[in-house]
Amino acid sequence: MTSVKLPIPDANVIARRGAINDDLARLIGREALVTDEEGRRAYETDALTAYRRMPLVVALPRTTEDVAKVLRYCHDNNLKVVPRGAGTSLCGGALPAEDAVVVCISKMNRILEVDYANRFARVETGITNLAISARVAERGFFYAPDPSSQLACTLAGNLAMNSGGAHCLKYGVTTHNVLGAKMVLMDGTVVEIGGPYLESSGYDMLSLVIGSEGQLGIITEATVRIIKTAEGARPMMLGFSAPETAGECVAAIIAAGIIPVAIEYMDRPAIEVCEAYARAGYPLDVEALLIVEVEGSDAEIESLLAKIAAIAARFNPKRVEISADADHSARIWAGRKAAFGAIGRLSDYYCMDGTIPLGQLPYVLSRISQICAEHGLKAANIFHAGDGNLHPLILYDANKPEEAEKAEAAGAAILSLCVEVGGCLTGEHGVGIEKRDLMVAQFSATDLVVQMRIKSVFDPAWRLNSAKVFPLEASESLRSDTIARSPEAA
Amino acid sequence: MTSVKLPIPDANVIARRGAINDDLARLIGREALVTDEEGRRAYETDALTAYRRMPLVVALPRTTEDVAKVLRYCHDNNLKVVPRGAGTSLCGGALPAEDAVVVCISKMNRILEVDYANRFARVETGITNLAISARVAERGFFYAPDPSSQLACTLAGNLAMNSGGAHCLKYGVTTHNVLGAKMVLMDGTVVEIGGPYLESSGYDMLSLVIGSEGQLGIITEATVRIIKTAEGARPMMLGFSAPETAGECVAAIIAAGIIPVAIEYMDRPAIEVCEAYARAGYPLDVEALLIVEVEGSDAEIESLLAKIAAIAARFNPKRVEISADADHSARIWAGRKAAFGAIGRLSDYYCMDGTIPLGQLPYVLSRISQICAEHGLKAANIFHAGDGNLHPLILYDANKPEEAEKAEAAGAAILSLCVEVGGCLTGEHGVGIEKRDLMVAQFSATDLVVQMRIKSVFDPAWRLNSAKVFPLEASESLRSDTIARSPEAA
Repeated sequence: MTSVKLPIPDANVIARRGAINDDLARLIGREALVTDEEGRRAYETDALTAYRRMPLVVALPRTTEDVAKVLRYCHDNNLKVVPRGAGTSLCGGALPAEDAVVVCISKMNRILEVDYANRFARVETGITNLAISARVAERGFFYAPDPSSQLACTLAGNLAMNSGGAHCLKYGVTTHNVLGAKMVLMDGTVVEIGGPYLESSGYDMLSLVIGSEGQLGIITEATVRIIKTAEGARPMMLGFSAPETAGECVAAIIAAGIIPVAIEYMDRPAIEVCEAYARAGYPLDVEALLIVEVEGSDAEIESLLAKIAAIAARFNPKRVEISADADHSARIWAGRKAAFGAIGRLSDYYCMDGTIPLGQLPYVLSRISQICAEHGLKAANIFHAGDGNLHPLILYDANKPEEAEKAEAAGAAILSLCVEVGGCLTGEHGVGIEKRDLMVAQFSATDLVVQMRIKSVFDPAWRLNSAKVFPLEASESLRSDTIARSPEAA
Repeated sequence: MTSVKLPIPDANVIARRGAINDDLARLIGREALVTDEEGRRAYETDALTAYRRMPLVVALPRTTEDVAKVLRYCHDNNLKVVPRGAGTSLCGGALPAEDAVVVCISKMNRILEVDYANRFARVETGITNLAISARVAERGFFYAPDPSSQLACTLAGNLAMNSGGAHCLKYGVTTHNVLGAKMVLMDGTVVEIGGPYLESSGYDMLSLVIGSEGQLGIITEATVRIIKTAEGARPMMLGFSAPETAGECVAAIIAAGIIPVAIEYMDRPAIEVCEAYARAGYPLDVEALLIVEVEGSDAEIESLLAKIAAIAARFNPKRVEISADADHSARIWAGRKAAFGAIGRLSDYYCMDGTIPLGQLPYVLSRISQICAEHGLKAANIFHAGDGNLHPLILYDANKPEEAEKAEAAGAAILSLCVEVGGCLTGEHGVGIEKRDLMVAQFSATDLVVQMRIKSVFDPAWRLNSAKVFPLEASESLRSDTIARSPEAA
């Protein structure tokens, strides 16, 4: 699974490694650098492990000023920079390069301020996602976006990828939960964007920066919204004999104006594997299982679950099971949460991340099976159904290179399908290396040129996290066009 | 109130008016143009009526293609363009120029698609804000942002200004309720941004464009989120003997994790005027009145109002009155909704729109009185307290030019105060002409340069809605800098 072309590293830069290390040590201290081969090896990949590149050097700054010093140095010395959080990216977003300085933010993990009256926390972005919620839990608050990797992933990575999670149907993704950021530009300038209070003059730079995959700058501090935890939450399971009816049921719940906290969808292969692993009590005689969770006071929960059950009844469910108590709830979620691990025990898998219009769900699911079958592979489907964010798992044997290639080809076909039906290449995992060359399927040449010109505003020489997000070859010709259309030419 | 400098119009363009009219008539039809003086006079100002300029010609396109034709023509012929919706801008955002073509979107007001299963409506942006809610009301849905001008203002204007409203505390402002847009760039290219379904690859161009005040392109179609109307809603009134305690009570409600639909604040001058006008039953023995509205089922409403009353009790309210029924609710809101009209009957006023951190409320309110007194003027305060968006009304006599000047000076001092305490120049009314030269108080030179370079990405020759948003003189020197730092120079 290594079909994406990476640029040839600059041998002159690699030859200057010793001198660069010395310069950086003078700037931020030798102890803030990882220079030895063994140490650097820990940073050579992210969660898209098929791609590996040894970094030139890894900087572990402890302050915004140190980040600024490193970026200014790289800017002045024409060095590439790869920003990194915990390295949990599923799309190769944090993949290093042999001629690039990795700036890893993970040592900057302090909580700087918590303000309950204004409902925000100000943190350094190397903090893990879950550590924010842990800190404010005693007062009954939490930080809403909850990617599966939340125990490990940093807020910096969440900001770069605009991460979501199972509960984003109700609370939105990262961009809806961030109020302000301190960002270091490639030339070392530090800018403040947004802030804890209602802010709207000037362009919405914050939203532009969130989800920009480390292409525009390095965010070192962020002010995030904290939300009051609901009094309680309870899931129900709905089993259907056909994916079509499960999809229609999801659409009907949403059309009724009900926003559950989560609607998770599992197909038969996923149900079987998870049930075998977690004994969650999932029905084995259905083709599609929905786990629908609602929250609020007991009275609200009862009322919402009853409404959902009434809607589901119109679609002839084979199983309707409302959680009776906390144990029951935990059991229902245990299967879903163990899904990726459970499937990983049986097979290697390639996790996709397209989004589709909900109405296209039955068609897309049948096409996914068909595409995988055409490549001699199987798929399991587990995803956030409420917002149409698919996560098909393509099952393959990583020890057979030809199967890995087929999995990658099937994955590309599935993502093209998502775009074709009106959806998008990625719901929450990002573009990175993995989907870089597929961007032309999503965006017109004009769209890409406008985006690349914005990249040039922040990073004119394209030093930050280069060779990612934008198609490499297209980017060369588009960049010439960008330059031709620059303000100077106008 | 005309201290903001406008550029001298290009006499050569004005001299070409006849030929330009003929060209535009060939492109989109004579009937889609307003060329006569009387007709054009209707477009010479917006709701910031102190500034007036006769437009060169007004185009009233009926399709995206026509908008594209007009923009391409203006691009190729080096003509300026001023986009316009209903002209309800409070900051001069739609102010014409004698050498600019006004492109008024108000004839493009069709609803193209309503999809309840995916909870969106796709509309032409000339539609009024309220017409969207009216269309989906029969199914119990609504479009959430509710600016006071919602009966008249267009979605196009809401998109340009990222408009809010009383109910935005719970539902967010325009940017949180828009999923996709079709936009015409200055060179006539049509781009699609976002879409009805979960979308996250590439930069978040949609958020960048929303709130950009017509500087980046003209949005002709938008896909907006529609939301299920709550079962019911009910307000309560809380009266306090000091602004400080009212402010602390708001902060305590928010800190408890309760998000009412609205928290409106009125000070004594505002209470008196509104009560005299609307007989809403407001207490006249308090210094600050809060109207707090919650929504949900009857049980939720009861529970939330009881919680709020318990929190308020800690701050010794002089009056706690929970609405008993629909009539009572209507009466409580009648005073607030009549406020601007009621005050307008007694005095001319200049409506400000800063935002502040909630904790700064008592200090800011006392400073506002002080600033107005220093200028020999009075102020009334009515605003969305939940999100810290102030709307001080500076009362003055428009027939006395020296009072108008003082009001403008006091307004500028109040906005600088908002920025100084950590807030922002504008919560929802926009920058436009009015706050253009104050942007330097909010943003650093680097911030402004980055924003201006983004403007140049979309509109390299600065033809779209020029001389607004960015400080005119600063913009000249910053623009030279922008060009020096363009991709070509890198």
